[in-house]
Amino acid sequence: MVQPNVLDRNCGSRQVLNLLADRWSVLTIYALRGQTLRYGELHSARGDISQKMLTQTLQRLERSCLVARHAYPEIPSRVEYALTELGVSVLEPLGALCRWAEVNMAEVMVERSRYDAAD
Amino acid sequence: MVQPNVLDRNCGSRQVLNLLADRWSVLTIYALRGQTLRYGELHSARGDISQKMLTQTLQRLERSCLVARHAYPEIPSRVEYALTELGVSVLEPLGALCRWAEVNMAEVMVERSRYDAAD
Repeated sequence: MVQPNVLDRNCGSRQVLNLLADRWSVLTIYALRGQTLRYGELHSARGDISQKMLTQTLQRLERSCLVARHAYPEIPSRVEYALTELGVSVLEPLGALCRWAEVNMAEVMVERSRYDAAD
Repeated sequence: MVQPNVLDRNCGSRQVLNLLADRWSVLTIYALRGQTLRYGELHSARGDISQKMLTQTLQRLERSCLVARHAYPEIPSRVEYALTELGVSVLEPLGALCRWAEVNMAEVMVERSRYDAAD
């Protein structure tokens, strides 16, 4: 059996990576860490995502069983999203990536300014 | 001082995350783990990236000091890329993400088939 390899474009793991290595997937999963959120809360949590993109992202994550959608039979309708067990397991690398961005932000900004000034 | 927060669209850390939560950034950094590669090697390592996209990705990573570019004064020209110290440090979460995709590929594929069949 061939080992999965994300660098192989024909490997299924590349498709999985394509879903995860996406800013909206990362931010949606990160926003759901440790909490259930309604659609509107997810939308306002980020502010700059369009409803269309948020809906598409949630559908993709639900299709891969990373996020679970629960629609309550109420009027007005209430729909909530939470991480599945699989979603919680991917939170480890994705959360580490988000924290890396937060911790190294200042250094990256300095490097960018230096690079731009040298142009 | 306000803590960096990737969920805040005005935070600099979100810009850093936008660079990293991108399939070509992830694959480029992952391909460079533990090795220096020439441009052509990086291109053929993935196969499905256009030269334009690879060049743009490398420039973005170089600008943020994640990848170092070294051009040798030779004819024909030889240009090599390697991870910087900062790039090596981001390899930890990104490598974990790639491994997650490889390890969980089968489960995600099963879930996708189940989801599609239920439609």
